[in-house]
Amino acid sequence: MKLATYIGLHKRPRLGVVDLEQRAVLDLAAAAEAVHRRPDPSFSDMLALIDSAGPGLARVDELVREWPSEAVDDLDGVTLLAPIPIPRQLRDAMAFEEHVRNSRKQVEQRTGRPQKIPEVWYDRPVYYKCNRFNVVGHEADVVWPSFSEWMDYELELACVIGRTGRDITAANAPAHVFGFTIYNDFSARDVQFEEMRAGLGPAKGKDFDTGNVFGPWIVTPDELGDPHALAMEVRVDGERWGGGHSSAMHWTFWDLIAHVSRGETLYAGEIIGSGTVGTGSAHELGRTLSPGTVIELEIEKIGVLRNRLIKP
Amino acid sequence: MKLATYIGLHKRPRLGVVDLEQRAVLDLAAAAEAVHRRPDPSFSDMLALIDSAGPGLARVDELVREWPSEAVDDLDGVTLLAPIPIPRQLRDAMAFEEHVRNSRKQVEQRTGRPQKIPEVWYDRPVYYKCNRFNVVGHEADVVWPSFSEWMDYELELACVIGRTGRDITAANAPAHVFGFTIYNDFSARDVQFEEMRAGLGPAKGKDFDTGNVFGPWIVTPDELGDPHALAMEVRVDGERWGGGHSSAMHWTFWDLIAHVSRGETLYAGEIIGSGTVGTGSAHELGRTLSPGTVIELEIEKIGVLRNRLIKP
Repeated sequence: MKLATYIGLHKRPRLGVVDLEQRAVLDLAAAAEAVHRRPDPSFSDMLALIDSAGPGLARVDELVREWPSEAVDDLDGVTLLAPIPIPRQLRDAMAFEEHVRNSRKQVEQRTGRPQKIPEVWYDRPVYYKCNRFNVVGHEADVVWPSFSEWMDYELELACVIGRTGRDITAANAPAHVFGFTIYNDFSARDVQFEEMRAGLGPAKGKDFDTGNVFGPWIVTPDELGDPHALAMEVRVDGERWGGGHSSAMHWTFWDLIAHVSRGETLYAGEIIGSGTVGTGSAHELGRTLSPGTVIELEIEKIGVLRNRLIKP
Repeated sequence: MKLATYIGLHKRPRLGVVDLEQRAVLDLAAAAEAVHRRPDPSFSDMLALIDSAGPGLARVDELVREWPSEAVDDLDGVTLLAPIPIPRQLRDAMAFEEHVRNSRKQVEQRTGRPQKIPEVWYDRPVYYKCNRFNVVGHEADVVWPSFSEWMDYELELACVIGRTGRDITAANAPAHVFGFTIYNDFSARDVQFEEMRAGLGPAKGKDFDTGNVFGPWIVTPDELGDPHALAMEVRVDGERWGGGHSSAMHWTFWDLIAHVSRGETLYAGEIIGSGTVGTGSAHELGRTLSPGTVIELEIEKIGVLRNRLIKP
């Protein structure tokens, strides 16, 4: 199932199920009203649906079987928002070895200093936290921040947590997943590389309004299958620049969930990014972007996340 | 004014104004009911009060003048929670030069490698983001995570944002502040120092349940005066281990707010930590903690934040 947050005829964002063959989206709140003649608070937004867990998703299944025509919107006539407009928390990992190697090679070429992958990267997954308020969705303009001269994209797969837990084992991790979506982690490389020298990781290099793009929707695990078996590709102004495969993740999502939740409660509605797939950023390729560029990230079985990078 | 979140006779957390001379706390929701005979939604919790802005605080002032006795709780009979039990977002800076220097000296002694403060530290404030769900308050037990052998405290001053803004100038920053509180940023040093070698900053070294302590309450700017003129002290099992003064901040809170909000919306209800004051962590002193230790952080005009570090 593909679950989207969108704006259609109503001004308030709606929660919907996307049918790509019909190019249609079922407005879940309207469908519940049409079929059951009463509102269903689980369909007020994506976080409410996530919190309603199994019973909420069972009611979605039922409404999808009914597919009441009065609750169906034209997919091409709506505006998709980020599936969770304000996630409860955002972490981003660095699970693809090739990306780390390519990035370090570029830094090596610029600085002349050898950049070995640190041993600790192979010991445990590492991650940092992103600004959950900087989130936008498919087709939103991404605003080039005034403090940067060097903007980049990052092609990532993102995991939406569906069930709260602590000390989750890798074996149990799949039961804590709500679904997967595409993540474009826009980065101000000049600022990022400078500030990271102080040791605290990225800050303003990743933190600016519109910098975290998610979408176009969340695909649930029953439809997606193995999240570590998906082809990934990035196109810049229609041309393929890079891509890879989620099977290359050195640390799987199950590893990431187990690591993050050690001694720490991981909540439903949080999101964990995979980190960039190898060749999934322009910087790795020694290439740069200009204002006006359109970046499309495609992940198999999910779809395409498209955004234009604009200068205000 | 000292604003606290606490549990008294009611099971639900209450928002209150603390009077230290009387050892009393005014339950704001109960006071509004007593005086106005109707509930005031601005007093449902600290975030609601922050969002109600000036008019909400004016109604607090009025209720404090009335001080209806039926809404007063004994301060020594209540349990204080973190002033904002789940902040909207948490950033932590590293604004005190002496802490950075002391920390690097310790690493230098352990590793034999020189550890100069990186130039970028003097160019701009740096920060990372903390887990907003790991927050507890005064007198809460802090649980030593099973994955660490080396736990530490950090004495910090924290700024609570009161008004949402973007591209805030340092000159306008004070108008965006709701108040200040004490922050104990518990850290698993062994894990932190290892994972930071991968470049993304601290992750599990800072992220574990109960690891972010705030309190005992928020002091509003009218009562606190200049936040950069406060004596700070840490006591371990009653003995003074370190301390300093907020005037030593190389980057002021006004600098931090200006920096964070560049091209990025900073929201009411977010918190920014100062970073550790010089000698405000055991690690800087070459000292270590044992389970059962009680850590007291005191900041002038705010109070004492006391927690026991326990092994489960």
